[in-house]
Amino acid sequence: MIDLNEVDEQVQKLIICVKNDTIESLKQPIKVDEKTGRKDLVTTVDKHNEQMLVDALRKIIPDSQILGEEGFGDEVKDLNGWTWIIDPIDGTMNFVMQKNNFAIMIALYHDGEGVLGYIFDVMNNDLYHGGPAGGVFRNQQKLKLPENISLKNSLIGISGPLLIENKYNLQNVARVSRGPRMYGSAGIEFIAAMNGELCGYVSYLRPWDFGAGKILAETLGLVVKSIDGTQLNMLSSSVVLVATQRASQEVIELAN
Amino acid sequence: MIDLNEVDEQVQKLIICVKNDTIESLKQPIKVDEKTGRKDLVTTVDKHNEQMLVDALRKIIPDSQILGEEGFGDEVKDLNGWTWIIDPIDGTMNFVMQKNNFAIMIALYHDGEGVLGYIFDVMNNDLYHGGPAGGVFRNQQKLKLPENISLKNSLIGISGPLLIENKYNLQNVARVSRGPRMYGSAGIEFIAAMNGELCGYVSYLRPWDFGAGKILAETLGLVVKSIDGTQLNMLSSSVVLVATQRASQEVIELAN
Repeated sequence: MIDLNEVDEQVQKLIICVKNDTIESLKQPIKVDEKTGRKDLVTTVDKHNEQMLVDALRKIIPDSQILGEEGFGDEVKDLNGWTWIIDPIDGTMNFVMQKNNFAIMIALYHDGEGVLGYIFDVMNNDLYHGGPAGGVFRNQQKLKLPENISLKNSLIGISGPLLIENKYNLQNVARVSRGPRMYGSAGIEFIAAMNGELCGYVSYLRPWDFGAGKILAETLGLVVKSIDGTQLNMLSSSVVLVATQRASQEVIELAN
Repeated sequence: MIDLNEVDEQVQKLIICVKNDTIESLKQPIKVDEKTGRKDLVTTVDKHNEQMLVDALRKIIPDSQILGEEGFGDEVKDLNGWTWIIDPIDGTMNFVMQKNNFAIMIALYHDGEGVLGYIFDVMNNDLYHGGPAGGVFRNQQKLKLPENISLKNSLIGISGPLLIENKYNLQNVARVSRGPRMYGSAGIEFIAAMNGELCGYVSYLRPWDFGAGKILAETLGLVVKSIDGTQLNMLSSSVVLVATQRASQEVIELAN
């Protein structure tokens, strides 16, 4: 029998350790490699963090599988039982170029249902954590549900490639809004939506980019869907929309 | 005879007061009006701050003129003698929508030459200040000159309207870079360029949007120009480029 309070406590301790290691790593030059090209980077810190997370999470729930960005986990084919989805550095480009605006993310799913999510905004030293059972917290402070703001009265996060290439009519979505914003990290943009700073965020994301954010955002009453309005497949990449109820309807209508 | 150290000390005290009032104002609902339309806002806080700045700056240098966003200053027709250029809230849209990512800015020019600049990143509680005589500081810490990074190896800030409408070929500029970013406040994006987080920033700006940033950025070896490569007219609006030497050449070439 899994004690989720105990699991939560251990994961919080773990993510703080990984965060501390990450800050320490910024004091030295970071070794950077390209993955699929010059806009898709990986560093020794991504790899170190993922290894550390994988080793510890396996101990926290021994009978669990782990889907991680850098491949130190398992080849996950379904979400039966307990599954961790982890991003050791979300926003690696920002991490390398800015030493700012990046996150560490952990999600725990059980039989496909989100249980616990963690997004650590490292440079602001803010851990967003929680899940459907207990609500969402920024550090020790419980977050209120964000207001159900409409697209035309608020700002929206849109990723660079989608906006530039006008995929899904997103240039028009931006025009209808009060303005687009672009921070370069899914974790940081999920946080902005959860804080009510954006009515939503649209980007092409992989499971580790949205695994934790989906649990936290849905707990706060936000909608997390594919841009075509369908449910997300947790094991594949999609253009993901997180938004307030109102903004999600408006964006999906404009985008399809 | 003006004692610039004395002036600097008084302006730092003043901008801290205005910052404190601004944070206090966030605890109450803020009265918002549209200026030219729903994407151009002004609040009672912009007006309060500008009145406070105008009153105090007139005392700090009695024989000075003041160019301010909200019109509480003077009708400034030339930059002869001492001129203050002030933005009581830069990024008013962010201020209203996010309560985050906005700045208070003050610049002092003498016979058209930048002397002292101040950008207060309110929510991070960071005051960037200084000028050509003494260098640029974040609070008490002197900033190093940012690395002369090239466009293709770094991130660039581009304002929403310019990127969406592909003005000056800026979609291609974004594609050549490692990625565009969009924060919605000139002050916050000047800071990102000064910290080396962006190789540059392009936006349509009015004098109070770039008055302080120009002084600080140029002191740090960055180029601040019109996007066509010409010198800025300090009394009119332009599409402004702030960038490293390298990135400025690359952007101007791609944009013209």
